[in-house]
Amino acid sequence: MSKNFFSTCFIILLTFSLNAQTESDAFTIKKIYETALTESNAYVWLTHLSENIGGRLAGSPNSSKAEDYTQRILDSLGVNSSFRQECTTNWWHRKKESEVNMYLSPNVKVQLTSTSLGNTIGTNNKEIKANVIEVHGLNELKKLGEDEIAGKIVFFNRPMDAKLVNSFNAYGGAVDQRVFGAARAAEFGAVAVLVRSMTNKLDDVPHTGTSIYEDGINKIPSIAISTMAANLLSETLVSSPDIMVGLSNDNETVPNQKNYNIIGEWKGSEFPDQIIVVGGHLDSWDLAGGAHDDGAGCVQSMAVVEIFKKMNYQPKHTIRVVLFANEENGLVGGQEYAKLAKENGENHIAAIESDAGGFSPRGFSADGLSSFFDAKFKKVSDWFNLLEPYGVSLSKGGSGADISPLKDQGPLLFGLRPDSQRYFDYHHTPDDHIEAVNKRELNLGSAAMASLIFLIDQYGI
Amino acid sequence: MSKNFFSTCFIILLTFSLNAQTESDAFTIKKIYETALTESNAYVWLTHLSENIGGRLAGSPNSSKAEDYTQRILDSLGVNSSFRQECTTNWWHRKKESEVNMYLSPNVKVQLTSTSLGNTIGTNNKEIKANVIEVHGLNELKKLGEDEIAGKIVFFNRPMDAKLVNSFNAYGGAVDQRVFGAARAAEFGAVAVLVRSMTNKLDDVPHTGTSIYEDGINKIPSIAISTMAANLLSETLVSSPDIMVGLSNDNETVPNQKNYNIIGEWKGSEFPDQIIVVGGHLDSWDLAGGAHDDGAGCVQSMAVVEIFKKMNYQPKHTIRVVLFANEENGLVGGQEYAKLAKENGENHIAAIESDAGGFSPRGFSADGLSSFFDAKFKKVSDWFNLLEPYGVSLSKGGSGADISPLKDQGPLLFGLRPDSQRYFDYHHTPDDHIEAVNKRELNLGSAAMASLIFLIDQYGI
Repeated sequence: MSKNFFSTCFIILLTFSLNAQTESDAFTIKKIYETALTESNAYVWLTHLSENIGGRLAGSPNSSKAEDYTQRILDSLGVNSSFRQECTTNWWHRKKESEVNMYLSPNVKVQLTSTSLGNTIGTNNKEIKANVIEVHGLNELKKLGEDEIAGKIVFFNRPMDAKLVNSFNAYGGAVDQRVFGAARAAEFGAVAVLVRSMTNKLDDVPHTGTSIYEDGINKIPSIAISTMAANLLSETLVSSPDIMVGLSNDNETVPNQKNYNIIGEWKGSEFPDQIIVVGGHLDSWDLAGGAHDDGAGCVQSMAVVEIFKKMNYQPKHTIRVVLFANEENGLVGGQEYAKLAKENGENHIAAIESDAGGFSPRGFSADGLSSFFDAKFKKVSDWFNLLEPYGVSLSKGGSGADISPLKDQGPLLFGLRPDSQRYFDYHHTPDDHIEAVNKRELNLGSAAMASLIFLIDQYGI
Repeated sequence: MSKNFFSTCFIILLTFSLNAQTESDAFTIKKIYETALTESNAYVWLTHLSENIGGRLAGSPNSSKAEDYTQRILDSLGVNSSFRQECTTNWWHRKKESEVNMYLSPNVKVQLTSTSLGNTIGTNNKEIKANVIEVHGLNELKKLGEDEIAGKIVFFNRPMDAKLVNSFNAYGGAVDQRVFGAARAAEFGAVAVLVRSMTNKLDDVPHTGTSIYEDGINKIPSIAISTMAANLLSETLVSSPDIMVGLSNDNETVPNQKNYNIIGEWKGSEFPDQIIVVGGHLDSWDLAGGAHDDGAGCVQSMAVVEIFKKMNYQPKHTIRVVLFANEENGLVGGQEYAKLAKENGENHIAAIESDAGGFSPRGFSADGLSSFFDAKFKKVSDWFNLLEPYGVSLSKGGSGADISPLKDQGPLLFGLRPDSQRYFDYHHTPDDHIEAVNKRELNLGSAAMASLIFLIDQYGI
């Protein structure tokens, strides 16, 4: 018999076995989706986390309750072990919410719906009253200079760009005003800053979020106002540029609190030393229950284990559910996790984060060290015809804030990418509650993550 | 010079011009999306339609108001002409909403949240009180027979299949109970039917929708109960199979009302006789404002003209916005439109319908006469790399109820396919209001339709 005959037989057998494999993988993925949609408790966990525990800002008493609760859930799922990694956090604490008033005359004031930004100092409830100068970006401050800014309240009013289809890109293009506005404006003698809330929606809901002071620069209060309030203030300034605005609030920062990364580890049967991380961050802002940000990511990550257990699927690689401490106000948990992984010489082959809301999943974006990235990306891309029926695709891009410190240790990093349209309707607001989460959309996110992890587990990276 | 040289030149020129064309198309589509996201009034129109006018069941006074309003909007957009096509409809009218009670004892009753199904007769407010037999499908009736059914209330309790990712498939697999339940059960002597609401969500919201009587079969009342009420009734029947249920309601049908398809026609500059239809249905159920079903489809269709006008784009083919009469309760408008198109010898090259909610668009499904369908589908598929960046794909499948009567006249039919997870949270309920619609998601649907129509207009079908 000729060599050709054997080659042909080999190709036929290979094709047959590849097709059979694909069919079997498709069957498993279907089962993952069905299990997620009909048997997962993710929505129940999320209800407890966001409504019974509630807002859980790093360092707060609630943040400890959330740690205890999720560790208990992980234990109940039958992971091999659960453990904690200690992180030191500062508890920034909203003692009295901000009040901002526009003075139409000395005796007539209009209140602007507002919220203090994370880490901001307070006014000790005393009113700071000053003229306002509106700007649309950090770079305008230098042009205006101290003459125009000193003694005034700087009002950052550049909206998120509504033209961008992906609302995260619009957020990325506007959020520097919130994060660095106070520090930059203080350099020119501003007495406080007001920041337009980070949302495409025109409503009267204020959005908090982190703001950062810098060493050697005067700390001034930093407050967000709703988009409707921002429009009103801006319009008023056109006709009455000398209008006075008063603002007050009261906050404190309690240093050196303890928080923990909560980790559930399920040992792989064949490659126990090769670790796949799936996670979200356990902390949330204090205004609501952090249902989308990032309670959803936490419960979806726990649901990956739940789904596999219900299916009696035993992973070959070690799966670690990691619920990271303090993403919102310092990224301490993600950094600590990466540091310990390095010190312990652990081998992470992949990490997946869900931190973009519990909405219908549309895909994953992948990131990694440039050295082998293209080859790894190509390999993973080839699997995605199996996820196409579920509307889940793969693209290159960022992954997640908590897992990105792992990047230089070589794993392929993935971010779950849900539909982004509604995220910034709720993000960091008093509305980020369980009612804003659709149970099926949440479960589909768990299913997408479990499916990707199943494929990584089957074929390695 | 050789023939090869010319061939090579030709290929280079062709490639260059194709790439330039693709770039130019991509630029136009980007502009369509930006215009939709920042300049469209679709959300304002929808607010008026769903909240100021409100529910607009065929034949009702509100249905006439909706016709006048949308024709006025179409005229204001600068179409060449707007006109109406008369349709005769019956106005089924909910005079008094249903009340359904479970009698735990003669004096202790528990109310089950309910709503009368469309077209059902009423009880003239008198209570029908009977035992209940629970079934999970029409086919169970024959097995049970008259002995088990006569004199009883038949309770159809097969849920939508939560395992199915696309909720429209789950709806399609359960809705026969609502549509044909009363007629089938009456054949075996049932006195009324209760139907589990058509939704995957477990809540206390009742879902109405059409039910159909058949000639020669006794008409019995047909009432939907919420999924929570259905679970409660089912559980109660396990322990107390002989429990009595009482139901009452009052409805009337006013025959021979006038409704109209509302049509805005914008003549094409090069192929005025080749028509592209874009539409939705103007009628809605009466319990709420029909914001998703199908106010969204109507305003998105009008927005296609609005967007092109704002971009100064003059279509080569004639675009017709068609707001169809009475989809919900008889499909009269769609049938009338197709009939007149045939009588007038019109040439429809494509029709696009949006009737799956104003959620984030994920694609289109395409349908058509089998003769040239594959070739046409292939041609259109090739354009969709231009829509990939917007998460919009093409698949084969159904199009829309109102445009499908056009099918045998040869046009390619498209249905807009938004994300389906939330649709049946609101469908035919008191909750289908403007608050359930996200403005950006709505506008993205308009943009997807305008983009597809732009490509059809450029390249024909």
